[in-house]
Amino acid sequence: MARSKHPIRGKGRPRRRAAPRGSFSLKDVAAAVGGRAHGSARALTGVASLESAGPSDLSWVSDDRRAADAAGSRAGALLVSAEPLAGGKPCVVVEHPQVALGRWLAAFRPAARPKAGVARGAFVARTAKLGPGVSVSAGATVAAGARVGARSTIAAGAFVGEGAVLGEDCILHPNAAVLAGCSVGARCVLQAGAVVGSDGFGYVWDGAAHRKIPQIGTVRVEDDVEIGANAAIDRATLGETVVGRGTKIDNLVQVGHNVTIGENSILCGQAGIGGSSILGRGVTLAGQVGVSDHVRIGDGATLTGQAGIARQGRVDAGAVLSGMPALPHREFLRRAALLGRLERALERLAAIEKKLG
Amino acid sequence: MARSKHPIRGKGRPRRRAAPRGSFSLKDVAAAVGGRAHGSARALTGVASLESAGPSDLSWVSDDRRAADAAGSRAGALLVSAEPLAGGKPCVVVEHPQVALGRWLAAFRPAARPKAGVARGAFVARTAKLGPGVSVSAGATVAAGARVGARSTIAAGAFVGEGAVLGEDCILHPNAAVLAGCSVGARCVLQAGAVVGSDGFGYVWDGAAHRKIPQIGTVRVEDDVEIGANAAIDRATLGETVVGRGTKIDNLVQVGHNVTIGENSILCGQAGIGGSSILGRGVTLAGQVGVSDHVRIGDGATLTGQAGIARQGRVDAGAVLSGMPALPHREFLRRAALLGRLERALERLAAIEKKLG
Amino acid sequence: MARSKHPIRGKGRPRRRAAPRGSFSLKDVAAAVGGRAHGSARALTGVASLESAGPSDLSWVSDDRRAADAAGSRAGALLVSAEPLAGGKPCVVVEHPQVALGRWLAAFRPAARPKAGVARGAFVARTAKLGPGVSVSAGATVAAGARVGARSTIAAGAFVGEGAVLGEDCILHPNAAVLAGCSVGARCVLQAGAVVGSDGFGYVWDGAAHRKIPQIGTVRVEDDVEIGANAAIDRATLGETVVGRGTKIDNLVQVGHNVTIGENSILCGQAGIGGSSILGRGVTLAGQVGVSDHVRIGDGATLTGQAGIARQGRVDAGAVLSGMPALPHREFLRRAALLGRLERALERLAAIEKKLG
Repeated sequence: MARSKHPIRGKGRPRRRAAPRGSFSLKDVAAAVGGRAHGSARALTGVASLESAGPSDLSWVSDDRRAADAAGSRAGALLVSAEPLAGGKPCVVVEHPQVALGRWLAAFRPAARPKAGVARGAFVARTAKLGPGVSVSAGATVAAGARVGARSTIAAGAFVGEGAVLGEDCILHPNAAVLAGCSVGARCVLQAGAVVGSDGFGYVWDGAAHRKIPQIGTVRVEDDVEIGANAAIDRATLGETVVGRGTKIDNLVQVGHNVTIGENSILCGQAGIGGSSILGRGVTLAGQVGVSDHVRIGDGATLTGQAGIARQGRVDAGAVLSGMPALPHREFLRRAALLGRLERALERLAAIEKKLG
Repeated sequence: MARSKHPIRGKGRPRRRAAPRGSFSLKDVAAAVGGRAHGSARALTGVASLESAGPSDLSWVSDDRRAADAAGSRAGALLVSAEPLAGGKPCVVVEHPQVALGRWLAAFRPAARPKAGVARGAFVARTAKLGPGVSVSAGATVAAGARVGARSTIAAGAFVGEGAVLGEDCILHPNAAVLAGCSVGARCVLQAGAVVGSDGFGYVWDGAAHRKIPQIGTVRVEDDVEIGANAAIDRATLGETVVGRGTKIDNLVQVGHNVTIGENSILCGQAGIGGSSILGRGVTLAGQVGVSDHVRIGDGATLTGQAGIARQGRVDAGAVLSGMPALPHREFLRRAALLGRLERALERLAAIEKKLG
Repeated sequence: MARSKHPIRGKGRPRRRAAPRGSFSLKDVAAAVGGRAHGSARALTGVASLESAGPSDLSWVSDDRRAADAAGSRAGALLVSAEPLAGGKPCVVVEHPQVALGRWLAAFRPAARPKAGVARGAFVARTAKLGPGVSVSAGATVAAGARVGARSTIAAGAFVGEGAVLGEDCILHPNAAVLAGCSVGARCVLQAGAVVGSDGFGYVWDGAAHRKIPQIGTVRVEDDVEIGANAAIDRATLGETVVGRGTKIDNLVQVGHNVTIGENSILCGQAGIGGSSILGRGVTLAGQVGVSDHVRIGDGATLTGQAGIARQGRVDAGAVLSGMPALPHREFLRRAALLGRLERALERLAAIEKKLG
């Protein structure tokens, strides 16, 4: 197909990331985020961080330590949790300034939602079921028996496999894939290239070759989950790999077969989890953390960047661990400091030996 | 294309991951896996792990230490390597219970194999050659001069480049790619988003810029190799990058240009190998292992999770190394333990100095 | 679409990676790379590394330490920086042998450039603008308002989002994606599956859930940048994530939102950078390096393999750091050596205590 006049049927004019039109007032912001406006700002036209904001920009103070930065910034107005933090600038007071920022951004520059419809060049099986308002772009596939919930978006090259189920208001970015038989809840986002349902890495050595154990389980991703670009979530050997409600997974994260991740956990970039591990609620894995097979991590535990937990390890609820092998974070820091004293200690030891003959 | 009535020509009814129909007996299992049945089980309808099995499920005992778990489980029947391990439950005795499990799963829930044919919406060049029984889905590409072996499956968005060769009975999952000139043996599987043949990372600084060294070599993937989701295998600068027969590569693994990996090796999730390194047969890289450039790793060596081998490093055949810089695993554990005694040792050292004045 | 006779309109015969036809002389090489030929070689037909070159192959000596290897090789001729390094073999003398190699390879086996045109099965929006000589393959998408510079190539499954801008002479390999509103300079290469413009990983916990902060910024990739297979570059929350001119990024690298990377930096495989970090010019991150959020790295600094820099860390210009927590490389090596003496030191300490009673 060459450049057609109507390449993507059912798509309206793009509404996303358009340049802001017109200006807004502090009252507009206060109304949108449910806060109180103090002072009067000149007409605002943009949103920017404290460092880069100018007189026509709204900014925000995310924590008390940034109050001085706020006063010194060129921002025209601020979202703050208490009026004094604004340092005299016009402001909107609201309980969670950064949450309010998110709300205002969503109101100020609403994300594009293509109009409903299946584009020419999209492949939707006859037995697939699409809810009202679903958008499927050219080059995307919805396979036999798949179900896609209302208002979900399937971008170019994205894939919904046989019998897979996608909830309402989901977004599959380009080339994201939910493979056969897997399910994804409502309001989930798969960034570009994310894969849900690749085969688990299961083989048995029979003396001559690694024999593949068929991976016939699935993945269940609950509501409000986000999965980063080129991340991979393996299906279970039997049963389900589970990603709990509200959990956010960053780019290039690996989740092995039969893993269970609790609600509202955070997995940062390039973290990896081996097979059959169980993470509680509100767990944080910082970047490049490695969790081996059959590990259990309690609610609210945190593993700092590059920490590693060996096979069958246990992490207590609320613990903060660092390093490999992982230690309580304070102990990790103490040992690093002690190591800095080791060279001198060896010299002192030699001096004593000399003294004692 | 909107929802057509026959979106994917040549595809029969999906056979994969269908709900099990009917039940099976211990004799059915024994016949399929070549084992001996002991005792009589009620009609079985599913397969499950020891932890989740119920009275109508077949389970298995993978090693002797799990015999107690087996006896305590609710499984209706077991695959075991010796009758006593079944703890009195009905069982099938077979040499490798987990291998037998794989066979039974394959028989019980055979993987889908779409019928032969090129789907409407697939792009197959006139000069490409497809063997009998090949399936190419909508949105997939087979470029000029490529050859695809009998019964191989090219899923949606998957790509076989110019002059690339794919063996018999391969599966390219959605958006997997075998780039121009590369070859993949028989019975290989590329999980979703896997890339074979990206350019090697080769530049030369000429005083003003990093000049790209054209990467005109290829990748040769031998028979029975599996490559995980979003993994990347670079082509050689000159010559070939080689992945040996039977080697299994997990998700998000990086293999640099001109690397050679021996037969039957295992590369776990997020492991990475720099350029020109040579791995022997039966090597194991655990998760997030880093192998730098020009490293040599002997047959049967194991690097444990997150271990790192520096440029031009050597690892002896059969060695088990941990940490970064990598040490023999026992030494790694001993040093970790010694570090735990360091704080007290410094106190003791100070006490001696005080005593000696 | 089944196998059509002309599946990809506007594509000529494949010119890439064709078998070398005919032979070449030392003079041909000298002319192409701007060097001086010494001695006379038999007709050459290929290019190979010192290890694998035969009498009809051209090879090269990349540094002085390889002079002995050169003399002992079977290569028919060599690219060298000084005649003596050729060990008596026919040679071409040139300032940067490896750069010259790249030039000769480019001349000897020119990369394929498909003829201009939009293939049947490509999706190009009516409002997209394609420069002269652009090639868009079947299954690729160029969305509304996007601009693609002259002679750029958009391979199968690749994606250029709404309003995105791609410079001249770029290559998007299969399934690579430049998402809405992002810009990529001239002569950039995105390897297969690379993603530019995924959402930044930004959430705020409001006491009940992680609320997504809309990521409404973009990514600006400057000229002459290369991005590896399945790498991911996040868009900014506000403003821009920036990848400086001439920077080369390897496979599976993660670059967080609002990161700025200076010119001519090198990010090796599986390195990761958290949000809002700033890297100078000529920075090198070796494989699997982890840089956390809000870090600053000075010009010319190097982090060796698997090194980690904690949140808000600072790295001086020109520093070479290793380990986690990162230390100056020499100090890292010294500490590793000291640790090897720790066991014996503890024994000596106990002996002194015994002696002192």
